[in-house]
Amino acid sequence: MPFLRPILFTLLLAGLVRAEDGYRLWLRYDRIEDNALRSAYTAATATIELATPSGQDSPTIASARQELADGLGGLLGVAPQISLIAAPAPAALARNTEGYTVRREGNRLRLAAGGDTGLLYGVFALLRAIQQRTPVERLELTSAPRIARRLLNHWDNLNRTIERGYAGFSLWEWPVLPDYVSPRYRDYARACASIGLNGTVLTNVNADALILTPDWLRKVAAIAGALRPYGVRVYLTARFSAPLEIGGLKTADPLDPAVVAWWRKKIADVYAAIPDFGGLLVKANSEGQPGPQTYGRTHADGANLLAEAVAPHGGIVLWRAFVYEAHRKEDRIKQAYTEFKPLDGTFRDNVVVQIKNGPFDFQPREPFHPLFGGLRETSVALEVQITQEYLGQGSHVAFLAPLWREVLSADTFARGPGTTVAQIIEGKATGRRLTAIAGVANTGTDRNWTGHPLAQANWYAFGRLAWDPTLDSATIAREWVGQTFGPAPAVATTLVPLLLESHETVVNYTGPLGLTGIFAKDHHYGPEPWLAEGRPDWTSVYYHRADRQGVGFDRTATGSDALAQYSPEWARLWGDPATCPENLLLWFHRLPWDHRLRSGDTLWDGICRHSQAGVDTVRRWQREWEGLRGAIDEERHAHVRSLLVIQERDARWWRDACLLYFQTFSRKPLPAGVEPPEHDLAYYQAIKLRWMPGNPAGK
Amino acid sequence: MPFLRPILFTLLLAGLVRAEDGYRLWLRYDRIEDNALRSAYTAATATIELATPSGQDSPTIASARQELADGLGGLLGVAPQISLIAAPAPAALARNTEGYTVRREGNRLRLAAGGDTGLLYGVFALLRAIQQRTPVERLELTSAPRIARRLLNHWDNLNRTIERGYAGFSLWEWPVLPDYVSPRYRDYARACASIGLNGTVLTNVNADALILTPDWLRKVAAIAGALRPYGVRVYLTARFSAPLEIGGLKTADPLDPAVVAWWRKKIADVYAAIPDFGGLLVKANSEGQPGPQTYGRTHADGANLLAEAVAPHGGIVLWRAFVYEAHRKEDRIKQAYTEFKPLDGTFRDNVVVQIKNGPFDFQPREPFHPLFGGLRETSVALEVQITQEYLGQGSHVAFLAPLWREVLSADTFARGPGTTVAQIIEGKATGRRLTAIAGVANTGTDRNWTGHPLAQANWYAFGRLAWDPTLDSATIAREWVGQTFGPAPAVATTLVPLLLESHETVVNYTGPLGLTGIFAKDHHYGPEPWLAEGRPDWTSVYYHRADRQGVGFDRTATGSDALAQYSPEWARLWGDPATCPENLLLWFHRLPWDHRLRSGDTLWDGICRHSQAGVDTVRRWQREWEGLRGAIDEERHAHVRSLLVIQERDARWWRDACLLYFQTFSRKPLPAGVEPPEHDLAYYQAIKLRWMPGNPAGK
Repeated sequence: MPFLRPILFTLLLAGLVRAEDGYRLWLRYDRIEDNALRSAYTAATATIELATPSGQDSPTIASARQELADGLGGLLGVAPQISLIAAPAPAALARNTEGYTVRREGNRLRLAAGGDTGLLYGVFALLRAIQQRTPVERLELTSAPRIARRLLNHWDNLNRTIERGYAGFSLWEWPVLPDYVSPRYRDYARACASIGLNGTVLTNVNADALILTPDWLRKVAAIAGALRPYGVRVYLTARFSAPLEIGGLKTADPLDPAVVAWWRKKIADVYAAIPDFGGLLVKANSEGQPGPQTYGRTHADGANLLAEAVAPHGGIVLWRAFVYEAHRKEDRIKQAYTEFKPLDGTFRDNVVVQIKNGPFDFQPREPFHPLFGGLRETSVALEVQITQEYLGQGSHVAFLAPLWREVLSADTFARGPGTTVAQIIEGKATGRRLTAIAGVANTGTDRNWTGHPLAQANWYAFGRLAWDPTLDSATIAREWVGQTFGPAPAVATTLVPLLLESHETVVNYTGPLGLTGIFAKDHHYGPEPWLAEGRPDWTSVYYHRADRQGVGFDRTATGSDALAQYSPEWARLWGDPATCPENLLLWFHRLPWDHRLRSGDTLWDGICRHSQAGVDTVRRWQREWEGLRGAIDEERHAHVRSLLVIQERDARWWRDACLLYFQTFSRKPLPAGVEPPEHDLAYYQAIKLRWMPGNPAGK
Repeated sequence: MPFLRPILFTLLLAGLVRAEDGYRLWLRYDRIEDNALRSAYTAATATIELATPSGQDSPTIASARQELADGLGGLLGVAPQISLIAAPAPAALARNTEGYTVRREGNRLRLAAGGDTGLLYGVFALLRAIQQRTPVERLELTSAPRIARRLLNHWDNLNRTIERGYAGFSLWEWPVLPDYVSPRYRDYARACASIGLNGTVLTNVNADALILTPDWLRKVAAIAGALRPYGVRVYLTARFSAPLEIGGLKTADPLDPAVVAWWRKKIADVYAAIPDFGGLLVKANSEGQPGPQTYGRTHADGANLLAEAVAPHGGIVLWRAFVYEAHRKEDRIKQAYTEFKPLDGTFRDNVVVQIKNGPFDFQPREPFHPLFGGLRETSVALEVQITQEYLGQGSHVAFLAPLWREVLSADTFARGPGTTVAQIIEGKATGRRLTAIAGVANTGTDRNWTGHPLAQANWYAFGRLAWDPTLDSATIAREWVGQTFGPAPAVATTLVPLLLESHETVVNYTGPLGLTGIFAKDHHYGPEPWLAEGRPDWTSVYYHRADRQGVGFDRTATGSDALAQYSPEWARLWGDPATCPENLLLWFHRLPWDHRLRSGDTLWDGICRHSQAGVDTVRRWQREWEGLRGAIDEERHAHVRSLLVIQERDARWWRDACLLYFQTFSRKPLPAGVEPPEHDLAYYQAIKLRWMPGNPAGK
C-alpha cells in the first residue's frame, strides 16, 4: 500500500528525431522549411536531364541518380523525373571530363559533363547550391577542377592504428576484407566525391610491404570496388624494400635488373586486381624508411624504377620530398631542397614530387616550401595535413583553409611575379599535365568521422581547395556551416568568423611570431620547448635557440642561409627583420628579447601578448558557442562545448609553460594584461602524457 | 542537343527508414503492427505505478521512466501516465533490492522493487516481455538476480586497443576524457542494465598502473558518472607493482608497511573520485604480470593487501586464479588448483577468487575448472569469455549460452550430488554472501558494438545467465532473436536452432573429441597444430601429443593425473575411455588412432567426420540464411552473409590443415564423406596471418 503521495510524471514521447551524431557530414539534405522556396526548387528540378557524350548508363551515373533522389527527396520531399541523354560536352569545360555545367532550359534542368564523374560532381554542386539556399535563378553552375589528382593520404597502418590519427582508428576493416565490405566505404566515397576528391592512398607512408601481397591486394580490390562508383580511385604506399621483404630478393637496388623485373611483375599483379589503380606513394630514405640511397642511388633512380613499372598501366608515382638526415650538419629545413633541386628534370613524366606546404613539418606556421619555386622541370604536388598533428589534434578548433590559402597564394616568383604555388601545382606555371594535391586525412572510425565535430570542415575545405585553389576561406566556411548546421543565420554569423580566426588563434598559443618546433616529443600534443635530449633535429632547442641574448633561428646569410633557397624577392623581404612579416620573424631571424615589434612592444612582450590573445580568443569562443545553444542540436553542441573546455585549458597550458620557460632566458616580467601562470615551470616540465592517440612511439 | 533517345529513370523516394546498423542492439522498440495486441498493451500500460520503499525520485528512477517512455512510445506510440509511490518491497523478493515485481492491479500496472535499480530492471523486463509479444494477461513478472556482482571485464588497454577484441577498439575515449563524455557510454550502460549487468571492469587484466594516477582517475570518474544512473558500477584492474611504478616505492611486497600504507592512501583517492567504486580485479604472477610471489608471498597475501585497502569503502577484490608457470613440469592445467587449493580459507571476506570456466584457457571445450569444487572456504566467481578468442573471433557464429550452461550445470559433487557450479557461484552451496560472475566483453567501437551481428547474442546471453544461471539456452536465444530481429516467426524458426548448434559446430572443426590447444600462435585465429617452437606450454604439441601411436593427453593416474583434482565421481566417469563423454575424450586420454568410438568409427575417422560435419553445418547455415532474405533488413542480412562466407572457408581450412597434419601420424586415409583437402600440408603450414586484431604481440 502506498503511504506517501505519489509523484506524477508527464513524459514526452520520444519522436523519430534522427540522432545528430555528425555521421551525415555536410550531406544532410534536411527538408527546406520555407514553403515558397521549396516550391520554387521543386518546380526547377522536377525534370532533370543528365547529359554525357555517350549517354550510356554506368555505376557512376547510377550514383549520381541515387544522390539526386536522396538529396532532392530529403530537401524537397519529391522525386524528380530524370533522364539521361547523349550530348557533346559543353564547350565551357574545355575537354575537362570532370567538369560540369548546370543550366535551366525552359522548365528543365540540364546537367551536362564530358564524363560520368563530371556529372556526379554536377549533382553534388546542385545539391550544395540548394542546401545553401541559392536563389533558383542562380542555379546555373559551371566548374571544372584545376588539379587532376585530388587525393587523401591515409596514414593508416595495417593493424588499424592511424599515425597522427585523432578520430578513432582506420576505416579499413582489413580482418574481414575482402568478404565483408562495410557500407561505410560507400559513405566515405560519397563524402569525397561531394567535394571533388578523386583518389585516396589507403596506407601509411611509413609503409608495410605486406599490402602488396596477393591476399592483401584482394582486400584492397574490395575497397576499390566500393569507391569506384563515386569516382574515387585507390592508391597505395610502396615500401622501397618490398623486393627483400616479400619478394625474396637479396637487394632492392633500383638499378638491379631482378629488382626492376620484380616490380614490373608486382605492379602487373596490382593492376590485375585493381584495373583503375591510381599509383604509388613513396616515402624513401626519410625517418628510417628504406630507399634508393641505401644502394648509392638517387631519389630519381628510385622514383623512376616504380614509375616505369606503373607506366604501362597508366599509373603514377608520388614521391615525397620530405627527407632529412639525422647527422647532417645542414639546417634540417634546407635538406629537402638540397637533395631534390639537383634532380630537377631527371624524373619520369609520370612521377610527381610531393612536397609538404612548408620546409619543416606541418608546423602551425611555416613559409612555403622553396622546392615549389625550385623544381621547374618536374611535376610537383602540394601535401598538406588535414589531421591536426601540431594543431591541437582531436580537441582544438583550427580551421585550416586560411593556412592552405596562405601557401597556395604565395608567390614563388619562379617565372616572374605571380607564379603562385597554386599555379605551379595546377601546372599552369610549368606546363606540366600531371598535377596533384594531397591532404593527410583526418578521418577515422569515430561516428562523426573526424573526432572534433568542427574538424569535418577541414576535410571539406581540403576537397574544395583541391578542386579550386582560388576559393576563398570565408566562402568555404560559409558553405560548410550552412550545409552542416542548417541555414539559421545565427549559426553562420557566429561560426564562420570563429572558424576563420581559429588557425591564427592556435598559432598564437603554440608558435607566435614564427617560433616553431616546440612540441612535446613523440606525440606532439602539448608544449615542450625545453626538449633538448636525443637526436638534435628532433629537439625543441634546435629550432628556437633561445638563450640570454635572444631567440629564433638565423636563416639569413649570417646563419643557415635557408633564404638562399628562395627567389631574391623573398630573400630581400624576409632577410631584413624590418620588412619580414612578423608571423615569420623568428623562423628567419635570431633577435634580442628587447627587439622592437611594429606594435612598439618588445619581442618578449609580443610573445607574451600573442599567447594571452590565444587564451582570450578561446574564452570568447566559449561564450559565443553558448549563444548557439538551441540553434544547434544538443548532441553536437555539447560535444563542441566539451572540447572548448579542453582547448581553453590547453591554451593556458601552452602560454604558461612556454612563457615560464622562455622567461628563464629573457628574465623579464610578464607585461600587463598577461595572466600569471598557475604553476611553476617544474610543474609543466613534469607533465608526461601517456598513450596519446596517433603516436607511433605508442607510449 | 540530344542525339539519342533519352533513358528515363523512375526513382523511389528515400524513406525515413532508420539504418539497421545494429546500434540499437536488442532495445529496438519498433511499433507493434498488430492493432489488437497494441491496443491491449496500451490499455494495460496506460497507468503505471512505480513503487520503492522510499518513493523518492533519483537518477536511476529517471532512467527507468525515460526507458518506459522511449520503450512504450516506440512500441505503442503512446506515453503512459507514470507515478512514483512509496511501498514496502514485495515479500517475494526476499530483501533482494535488485529484484522486481510487475503486477496488474485493476487498470493499473504496478512495478515494485526493494530499490531503484530493481525498478529499472523491472522496466526492462516489462519492455522485454512486450517486445516478445507476451500475452497481456501474462504481464505478471517476478524476478531477482541470483548472483550479486554481474560484471563485464574489458581487456581494454589505455591506448584503446583491446586484447582479444574483435569489434574495433575500446569504447573508452581516454584522450578527451573527462571533459567529453560520449553519449555512447550511456547507451552502453542501458544495454548492460537491460540484461541485469551491474558492474564493469574498464581496463585490461594485463594492467597499466597509470590508470590509478589522479589524471586518469578523473577520466574513470567521468565514465562512472555516465554509467551510474543505470546501476552499473565501475571497477578497475590493479597492477600489483603499482607502488613501484607510480608510487615511487622500492618494493611492492604486500607485507611491507609502506606498501600497505600506499595502497590504503591510493584506494582512498579512488573512492574520493568514485564513491561507489566497485573494486579491483587482479591478474598476478601470471604470464609475466607482477604479483606477491615476486616477494616470496602467496596469492592470499597479495589479495588480502588490496582487500584491506578497499574494505573500509565497501569494495571487493577479484583475484584471478588463472596462473601457471613457464618452467614448471606439472601439467599446465593442474597448476591453478595446485596453487590455490592450499590457500582455501585464507582470503579475506571481501576477496573473490575469479576462476575461468575451464582449467586451461577458454578453449572451445574444456571440463569445468576443478577449483569450483576445490575451494570451499573462499568466495569464487566464474569467468567466461564473451569475446570469441578461440571461437572464430570476429567472423564466426558461435552462440555461447550452451557452453556456459554446460559449465554452470556441471555437478562438482563438492557437497554431495547436485552441487553445481551455478550453486557454488550463487553462494548457495557455500553459504558465502559475496557472489560474482564475470564475462570478458566482446564490445568495441564497431557501430553494432560486437563486430559480428550475431555476437550481440553473446553479450545478451551472458547478462541473462548472470542474472539467472538456470535459464536455458533456447529461451535466451528466442528472447534475443525476437527483440533483435522482430517477431517474424520465420526468423526465429531459422535462427534459434542455428544459434543453438553453433558452438558445437565450431568445436567440430576446431577441437573435436576433446582435442585442445591447436590454435595459431599469438593471434589464435586459425589452426596451427604443428606449433612446436618456443615455450612448451604455449605450443600445440604440448596439448595434443600426437604421434604414430595415437593422440591425446593422458590425465588419468597413468598420466598427469589431473583427474585427481576432481571428485571421485568424475574421476571414475572420466577416467575410463569407455565411460568418458566423447567430447572430452582426448582431453583426458591418450588413445590409439584405431580406438573405437561409440559410433563404431575409429578415433581417426571420428576426428575426420567431426571436422567435415563442421563444414557441412556452416554450408547449411548459408542456405538457411539465404532463406531469410527479405525477412531481415538488407544491411544486417548482407553483413552476416559475408561473414558466413568467411566461416565456411575457415571451417575448410581447419579441417584440411588439421587432418593433413594428424594424418602424418595416423597414416590413414580420409573416410568416405570427408572431402579431400584443397592443398597440401605445406600450403597450410606456410600461412602466417599478420596484423590480426586483438593480438597483444601486435604482429
